[in-house]
This record gives sequence, structure tokens and C-alpha cells, in this order.
Amino acid sequence: MNYRMIKHTLGWVLLFEAGFFAVPLICAIVYGETAFWAFLATAAICAGVAALLLLTFKPRSRVLYAREGYVIVAMCWILMSIFGALPFVISGVTDSYIDALFETVSGFTTTGSTIFSTVEELPRSINMWRCFTHWVGGMGVLVFIMAFLPLSGGQNMHIMKAESPGPSVSKLVPRVRTTALILYVIYFVLTALQLIFLLCGGMPLFDALCTAFGTAGTGGFGIKNDSFNSYSSYLQIVVTVFMLLFSLNFNAYYLAFKLKFKDVFSTEIRTFLCIVAVAIAVVTLNIRGMFDSTGEALKHAAFTVSSLISTTGYATVDFNLWPSLACCVLVIIMFIGACAGSTGGGIKVSRFIILFKGTRKEILSLLHPRRVHKIAMDGRVVEPEVVRSVNAYMVFYVLIFAASTLIVSIDNHDLVTAFTSVAATINNIGPGLAGVGPALNFGFLSNTSKIVLIFDMLAGRLELIPMLVLFSPSTWRNK
Amino acid sequence: MNYRMIKHTLGWVLLFEAGFFAVPLICAIVYGETAFWAFLATAAICAGVAALLLLTFKPRSRVLYAREGYVIVAMCWILMSIFGALPFVISGVTDSYIDALFETVSGFTTTGSTIFSTVEELPRSINMWRCFTHWVGGMGVLVFIMAFLPLSGGQNMHIMKAESPGPSVSKLVPRVRTTALILYVIYFVLTALQLIFLLCGGMPLFDALCTAFGTAGTGGFGIKNDSFNSYSSYLQIVVTVFMLLFSLNFNAYYLAFKLKFKDVFSTEIRTFLCIVAVAIAVVTLNIRGMFDSTGEALKHAAFTVSSLISTTGYATVDFNLWPSLACCVLVIIMFIGACAGSTGGGIKVSRFIILFKGTRKEILSLLHPRRVHKIAMDGRVVEPEVVRSVNAYMVFYVLIFAASTLIVSIDNHDLVTAFTSVAATINNIGPGLAGVGPALNFGFLSNTSKIVLIFDMLAGRLELIPMLVLFSPSTWRNK
Repeated sequence: MNYRMIKHTLGWVLLFEAGFFAVPLICAIVYGETAFWAFLATAAICAGVAALLLLTFKPRSRVLYAREGYVIVAMCWILMSIFGALPFVISGVTDSYIDALFETVSGFTTTGSTIFSTVEELPRSINMWRCFTHWVGGMGVLVFIMAFLPLSGGQNMHIMKAESPGPSVSKLVPRVRTTALILYVIYFVLTALQLIFLLCGGMPLFDALCTAFGTAGTGGFGIKNDSFNSYSSYLQIVVTVFMLLFSLNFNAYYLAFKLKFKDVFSTEIRTFLCIVAVAIAVVTLNIRGMFDSTGEALKHAAFTVSSLISTTGYATVDFNLWPSLACCVLVIIMFIGACAGSTGGGIKVSRFIILFKGTRKEILSLLHPRRVHKIAMDGRVVEPEVVRSVNAYMVFYVLIFAASTLIVSIDNHDLVTAFTSVAATINNIGPGLAGVGPALNFGFLSNTSKIVLIFDMLAGRLELIPMLVLFSPSTWRNK
Repeated sequence: MNYRMIKHTLGWVLLFEAGFFAVPLICAIVYGETAFWAFLATAAICAGVAALLLLTFKPRSRVLYAREGYVIVAMCWILMSIFGALPFVISGVTDSYIDALFETVSGFTTTGSTIFSTVEELPRSINMWRCFTHWVGGMGVLVFIMAFLPLSGGQNMHIMKAESPGPSVSKLVPRVRTTALILYVIYFVLTALQLIFLLCGGMPLFDALCTAFGTAGTGGFGIKNDSFNSYSSYLQIVVTVFMLLFSLNFNAYYLAFKLKFKDVFSTEIRTFLCIVAVAIAVVTLNIRGMFDSTGEALKHAAFTVSSLISTTGYATVDFNLWPSLACCVLVIIMFIGACAGSTGGGIKVSRFIILFKGTRKEILSLLHPRRVHKIAMDGRVVEPEVVRSVNAYMVFYVLIFAASTLIVSIDNHDLVTAFTSVAATINNIGPGLAGVGPALNFGFLSNTSKIVLIFDMLAGRLELIPMLVLFSPSTWRNK
């Protein structure tokens, strides 16, 4: 294990985090808020620890293997959250460090589950920090650092693999660093585009910035108590469209930019759009009677479906009050999630495609044992190790899900609350149903439950493996 | 596709079913019930159709491939249920054929979900038929026929594989027919033993027979409205023990009989017993406050855990009223289910062991890519195709589960009702929670939901593949 390189990299991570505090700091200056000092103090602490790490641990070798990649990614996200939580406590908006940590992890992992019952009373700079954590976490901190810093020579791929969502990572260009840069350019341009559309709809700059950050990262922290209920239909539709855009595999935008239009609509994107269309249609029909017109029902159905399948978590209405069929559809799309290589969470559409093709193959080989059956997607063979790793992912997912639900149910709220609180966090969505529905928050849960859900949010964002590697004894054993 | 052989075998199945009606017929004679005529008429119809099939379709070749095996098993269970439902309608205990079919499928698949709100008012011969279907379905009809009839030369293994629960079938002795016979002898002896224990506890013969049939098949149809609440503690404990005994892999009894005691406690059986012990301990602690003494709480916890993990479904109390943690434990063990090669349902402990070992292997190969990692159980290597088929099973399981829950939720009952009604039927348990809790029944569901749950019960009992093969176009395509 290359401990020096791990600590060195974590030093860079904290230095970048100190820089990220510039955003809420500027906001605090503009609005003259005392939370300024909380951000300044945290930035100073971050920079101090970063300097200590960077100066003390100079790597003798820059070689990183897969397990170091996983450890770096897991530690990076945990450290970022530990420091990112400080402003909430220092500024006094909450007394509980566990609550602050929950909120920060929820931010970075782009979950959007909140422990605050009234977010409108929070200082604007605190709200800005909440939403900005979504933007930072959406595309990945280490991917960001990689784009600007020659971290570790040729071994960046291990980090990229561990931090990026989806069953396999495809490099857009041969160099990992250039790939990271291209991804961030796309991310930046899309965010800027949304900002412009929101401002055109008359949204105040502060709201527009927070919303653009939250949508881009598919995060979902609201800055209004009623989330998106009070915004105009135009703004709701803009957000609907951008939630979907940020759920697509970013490769598509690169391919479109390269004018390779026929490759843009990959199997995954086509499947994703089909699922979205069917879900919107079913929900619209099911909730039709609750609204004045079909158009109104369609608008809310489209917003909610896009919000949950992209794992953003904004709400225009309290969908917890919808009929069972609609709720059931929403729970299912919560698990499906976005496309691989997007900023969205969930299990990911491509995993389901691989699982489905794999099982279809099994049935065919039962029926025709002597034929050779292969799994292919978009004209390329899916390697057996990818299929196996997807299967392993699913098993861990179910195990972590069951264990978490068990622990949360000790709180003795109803089963739907226990089940959907885990579903909403491990899939990085935000709101669940019943006790953690969109009109409510996670503040009332016990500290034990909050710690479990913090783990689930991190495990969900990093797609389980880095967290499991971090806690596996075999990682720390030297041969 | 060897159609003649399929139809010929189905003829035998119906002939045996005609014979099975002897049990309720005798019961009807003893109690002088008019339902006698319903059973006689059905037996005659069965025998008639059987004779027609057997005389018209004489197989030219007795060769069966895997797909014919699956088709025979799926068709056999569907046909048996279609005819087995007739006495309910002819005797007039229900007007709805869908309800009658639901009850019969629930019987043969050893589910035990009922559509009757008061079972005590049913004729005794009808109750005897309900419980006897459990006994017939528990070990498998085709296994039964195979034990007594030289069906298809050497190809019986395909049928045995398709009908027996668990990821892989191990023959106890080289000949399939002898294996089937040994299994039925064990089944018969255990049932007789339980009958004796029940009679010793002062249970009336009729009740004891019905209970022994229901426990042996891990079915769970009650003949009292309150299931097992009103029986003595001694009887409740006897049933607890036998529910667990029928959940163990029957190979264990054969090995014990052969005095190979060190092989009896296989990994699966040890894991199963551990899960049972932990579940009972957690539930006892959680429900302690609801009962007068810890002993009382322990008795009800042990009964309920054994009833649900063995997928029997008897109840001594309304566990739907228990706290969330206990309910959550119960839902989880509903999915785990019994051991492979038992009469119990669920996903099966050995599948979870294989899944867990498979994923552990994946993590290890991520950390140490150059080492060779193998999966072994009880000193034997688990073949990659078994691992793959278990993975395929899980994916289909989840897909069928999600689709079923969606359709059932159209009825617009609460989500827990929709979710646990599917869980209780696909795992062949019987009662669920909320609207389908142990104090209630499935009668209030719509016909659409009932048909979906009928499919789920069959798919669950036959472990998905035969039902999927039956409905797969590729099965019926001739190369």
C-alpha cells in the first residue's frame, strides 16, 4: 500500500476544498452575513491540514494499484464531508455535528435529504454552500482535481474508475486527464446554460445559481420550504428538462459535439428515455383526477418522474399523497436511476440492461446448451468480468439495503418510512415516502439511523465497492 | 419438441390426481358431507381426460431434453390446479372460479394464502382437500410419479431438476427413480411422526391430519379462523419443531440414516440454523413488552420465525401488530426461505451462500487481480454455471416481483399490502402484512391481482425457470 501517495493526494483534496469555500464566502460578503466567519475558519483549518499533509508526505513512488485507487476515493469523500460539515456547526445553524455531517454527506453525494425543517430561515451563504456541495459532488472531486493536476502519472484510471458512476468507464480520449477536463467542460457549459434559462424566466440570481448547482449535480437541496411548488410553470419545465439532461451519459454530449450523431443515442440512453416516457404516462393517468387538467397532471408527473429517476429529488407537489400505483412506479424508478457516466445516482440503467441480457443468455443456454451465447451492447461484447462485477454489485446492494432497513426500523417508525429512507439515501435521491416524504425531513431520525444513512449515501454515490474495500481487512493486509 | 411424450406424461399426472381425490372422498364419507359428489365428479372428469390423453398419445420416443422437462413441469402444475379447483366451485363453497383457482394453486404451491374469511364453516372434506394439496405439492407431484412409474428412461433428471427447489439437485443414489423413492419415504415417515406427536398432545385426528399435511408441505392453510392461536403450547411447540425439520435439506436425513453424521450439518443447514437463532433472538427482544413473560414472547417469536422462514405461514398471534424491527426481520426471512431440497419456499439459503461467496470472490479479484479465486462449498467447487444461474434467478425474481407489485398496486391499497402480498405468494408463505396480514385474507383483491398472484405462486414454487421457459417464444420455435 502506497500510504505516502494516499496521504499526499488527500492533502490536495483538502486544499481544493479550502478553495471551494470561496463560493459561500463571496455569498456571505454580498449579503453581509456573519456565517462569513464560519466559512473563513473552516477554509483556514482545511488549508492548514492540507499544507501539513502535503509538506509531510512527499510520495517516493507515484505508482497506484486498484486498491489504492478505491481507498483514495473512499477516504477523499469521507474527509471532504468531515470538514465540509464544520460551517453548519460553527455558524450555529445546528447544534448536532451528526446532523451537520448528514447534511454535508447528503450534499456531496448529491442525495439532497435534509435535516432542516425550514430551509428558508437559513443564512443565504449556508444555502449556497449546501447547493454548491451538490455541484462539486456531481461530477466527482477527484475527477475535478485530475483535470487540473498531474496527480499520479498513468495510474489515474484507477481513481477515475472508482469515482465514476456506472459498471464500466470509457475514456473519451486516450489520456485520462483530458477525458476529465472534457467532462468538466461539458458539465460547466450545461450548468451555465441552465442558469441562463432560469434567469430568463425571472428567477432571482441567488435562486438560479442554487437551482443550477442542485440540478447539475442531480442533488436536490431546496432553498424553499415547498421545494419547487411556488415557482412558475416555465421554471418547473426548465428544471424538468435539465434534470433529464444531467441524467444522460455525458459521452453523448461529446459525441454530439464531434458530430457523431448516430452514436449519441446509445442503447442505454434509448432505454432510459423509454422508461421515462412510460413512467410519465402511467403516473399521469393515475393522478389525472387530482388535478384540474390533464396538462397540469402531466406537468407534475413529468417533473416528479424526472426528479426521481435522475435522483435529484426536487418536488412540485407532495407525491406521498398520490395513489398506490403512482407511488409504486416512483419507488421503482428510484431504484433504476440515471444513466452511467451521468451525475445521477441509483443502480443505473446500463446495469439493468447488462443484468437483463445476462439472464436472457442463461435461459437460452438452458434451452440450447450447445450453442455459444454472448452478451453484446451497442455492437460491442460485454466482457464476462463486467457482467460478474454487476452481479456482485447487486448482491452487495441488497445486503447493505437489508441491513440498513433493519437498523433504521429499530426507530420503530412504519415500514414504508424505514424502507424508503434507505432507498432515498442509497440511491442518492433525497425524499422518500411516508415519514420521509417530500413535505417532511430526516431530522427526526435517531443518530444511529442517521449514521447508517450517511454510510448508505456514501456507498451509493461511490457505487459500494470503494466503501467495501475501505472496510475489508484484506485491503490492509500486506502480502 | 416431443409433444407426444409431454401429453402422455400429463395424462399420467391427471390419473394420479384422480387418485388423490380419494383422500377428501373418504373424509366426506366419514362425515357424511354432500361435498362427496363434488369430489367424485371431479375425480371422474380427471380420470376421463387422463384416459383420453394416455390412449390418444402414445410416445414414439421417450427422449426428453431440458426444455421438454421444464415444459412438462410447468404444464403439470397448471393442469393439476385447473382440475383441483373444480370441487370448490361444484360444492358451492365459492362462486368464483378465479377464487377457487387461487385457493388450489395456493395449496399445491404450499403457499397457504386463502381467499376464505372463515375457514371453520367450510365442509371438513373441503378443508382436508385444501391441506392435502399442500402435502402433494410439498415434495412435488412429478417426483412422486417418478418414484412409482418408469416415466422416461434415463431422462427423468431433467424433470427432477425442474421441479426440485434449490440451485442444484444432488442425486442421493445413482438412479433418479430410487432417489425420488427415498425422498418420499423420508417425507412420509416425518409426516407420520408429526401426526403421532400431535395425537399425543390430544389433537383430534382430523385436525392432526390437516396440520401434519400442512406442516409437511410447509403450506400453511389453517382449519381454524385464528390459525394456531387456540391450540395448546405443547402443540404449538411440536409444530414449531416440525416446521423447521421440513425446512432442512432432505439429504441430511438420508445421510443421518446412513450414519454419515459429520456430513449431516452442511454449510447450508448450519447457516439456516444460525439465521433462525438470530431472528428468534431479535424478535423476542423486540416483542418482549407485549407479552406476560419472556418465555411467552420466545414461544411466539420461535413459532412465527419458523413459520415464515420455512414459508409455512401458520400464526399464533397477529404479528402484523408487532413493532417495526420485528416486522422488518420477518419480511427479510420471508425472502431468505428454507434450505434447498426441502419442501420450503423462498429464495433458499444456499442461493444466498453462493451469491455471497461469488461477490466476495469479486472483491478479492479486484484487490488481487493476478490470483485465481474459486468458490467452494462443503469442500466442493461450485461450478461457474451454477453461480451464473443463481444470478439469473435473482434478476428474474426482482423483475417478476417489481412487475407484480406494480399490477397489484393498481387496486390502490397501501404499499405494504401490495409489496407483502407479492412477497407472501412468490415465496410461497401465505400471510403478508397490513391488508394481507395473518388475521386477514386475500379475498378482497381484484381478479387481476389474484391472477398475478396465481402466477407468482407457481413461479415461486417452480423457481421461475419452468414458467419463464413455458412463456418464452424460443421454447416453441423449432430449429
